[in-house]
Amino acid sequence: MLKRIECVPNISEGRRPEVIAAISQAVARVPEALLLDQSSDHDHNRTVLTLVGSPEGLKNAILALYEAVLSHIDLRQHEGKHPRMGAVDVVPFIPIRDVTMKECVALSREVGQTVADRFGIPVYLYAEAATQPERAVLANIRKGEFEGLTAKMADPAWRPDFGPAQPHPSAGASAFGARFFLIAYNLQLDTPDVKIAQAIAKAVRASSGGLTNVQAMGLYLAERNQAQVSMNLLNYARTPIHRVQELVKSEAARFGARVLSSEIVGLIPQEALLEAAAHYLQVENWNPDLVLENAILRKESTEQREKP
Amino acid sequence: MLKRIECVPNISEGRRPEVIAAISQAVARVPEALLLDQSSDHDHNRTVLTLVGSPEGLKNAILALYEAVLSHIDLRQHEGKHPRMGAVDVVPFIPIRDVTMKECVALSREVGQTVADRFGIPVYLYAEAATQPERAVLANIRKGEFEGLTAKMADPAWRPDFGPAQPHPSAGASAFGARFFLIAYNLQLDTPDVKIAQAIAKAVRASSGGLTNVQAMGLYLAERNQAQVSMNLLNYARTPIHRVQELVKSEAARFGARVLSSEIVGLIPQEALLEAAAHYLQVENWNPDLVLENAILRKESTEQREKP
Repeated sequence: MLKRIECVPNISEGRRPEVIAAISQAVARVPEALLLDQSSDHDHNRTVLTLVGSPEGLKNAILALYEAVLSHIDLRQHEGKHPRMGAVDVVPFIPIRDVTMKECVALSREVGQTVADRFGIPVYLYAEAATQPERAVLANIRKGEFEGLTAKMADPAWRPDFGPAQPHPSAGASAFGARFFLIAYNLQLDTPDVKIAQAIAKAVRASSGGLTNVQAMGLYLAERNQAQVSMNLLNYARTPIHRVQELVKSEAARFGARVLSSEIVGLIPQEALLEAAAHYLQVENWNPDLVLENAILRKESTEQREKP
Repeated sequence: MLKRIECVPNISEGRRPEVIAAISQAVARVPEALLLDQSSDHDHNRTVLTLVGSPEGLKNAILALYEAVLSHIDLRQHEGKHPRMGAVDVVPFIPIRDVTMKECVALSREVGQTVADRFGIPVYLYAEAATQPERAVLANIRKGEFEGLTAKMADPAWRPDFGPAQPHPSAGASAFGARFFLIAYNLQLDTPDVKIAQAIAKAVRASSGGLTNVQAMGLYLAERNQAQVSMNLLNYARTPIHRVQELVKSEAARFGARVLSSEIVGLIPQEALLEAAAHYLQVENWNPDLVLENAILRKESTEQREKP
């Protein structure tokens, strides 16, 4: 079996196609790292890259990513709807196959340390890799954003885990960590009123009394003249996507608003969608092994084990 | 690449566990044929076996199936809610991977001919393998069922494609053919009134003005004291499962009835459920490549092709 880890770096550029292409090409050239997906958002001015690979392949891919980003992105010229503190803003490692969370934590620390040493960029460890409880939540680390980093780092409580205690001039700081698979999921409303999206976000997110494992914020999308509930689903197995969807619809109705459409940013595990289908179709005998492709894979691997 | 065909024989036994086990074990022993699933229904008194394999593996598996069925099932003692004309009632071949419909048609004819010759069982060709237009529809062939076979076969229009023009005493006749993937899908209602299920079935099925690619009938399930709309979805890509579900819900409301639950009989292709999820979640950027597992498979096979 081959160790498989996913890595989903978020970079602070979503508007210049030639810059995004140069960066993704630098990453795609690295052996043992597959660039699975690349998703840019103009309003957020942010791109999410999805890599899958071996620990060594991902380490090399992230180092190649930093080299390309440092020569193309200057945060002093960056503006967008999404909070950010770094040109490479956040680098999470996610266990996929034959690998433990502990191994992903170790890898995030190793690569974060190397980035700090080689490029002089301060690195914070977050999520499962956090060294202090308040750093487990990315929003705490990122609070104040790029523009507030110098002041924040002067506070001993916010010394970075690796690298200098001052931001890199053009690249700010980065957060490295390990976590479970995150689904980035947005719901567009039939109103341009951002206050409605914000009220819905407040109602559904964990931090203000809503669903656990859900982060949410309300945004206004100028391009579409629509308000959006922008969410991260941190554990789709325990807090499934359809429950989030239905709660947002219910809260929207409070304001006479409706969900126009949803958007999956990056990739989504098959299981999350299959569970949603089983929910809406009311399947009483639901079991992932009812899926033809799963049944074939499972049977093939059983037969392979049984043959010498 | 390995040729992969699915074969889903339906046998007329769903009540005697020891008989079902003996038959499925006989099939599972055959090399190059995986027995993926086995689903028995007490009210239908019928079992659906799902096999995936190479053409040669499936041929041997079907011959093994007939040997076991002939020694265990006597249709003269059979009763059940589902129409049937044979102990092995119907044997469809479905293209799955690296195989054309034409190859499946050829295989169904080859295996059907062998069964007729070896066991003296009359065989009709249906669906894509049919030799006459009215035989494309299985219900036309099966009309009159086991009990009506002798009279039906006296009519020259209903001579079987292979084998004798009289039913096998205990095993009746079989239909062999090739078709696209069929989803067997049942919806349970919150009423025991079979007339409501029959009216809904009539409204949604192709034969009486409903959705194309949908076969439906209304049944009463004594075990549960519920009426059921029992359906075959013949082309889930063109007539998706969620559209059928919503139409049944709408027609049920006409009678003040509701759908309590659904049931997937046998297996269902991943794509059918993913499309349902995308529908109910209103995903505006939907694409099967958003699914992590698909993206990994696609990328891995691309990289394999690119390396010498």
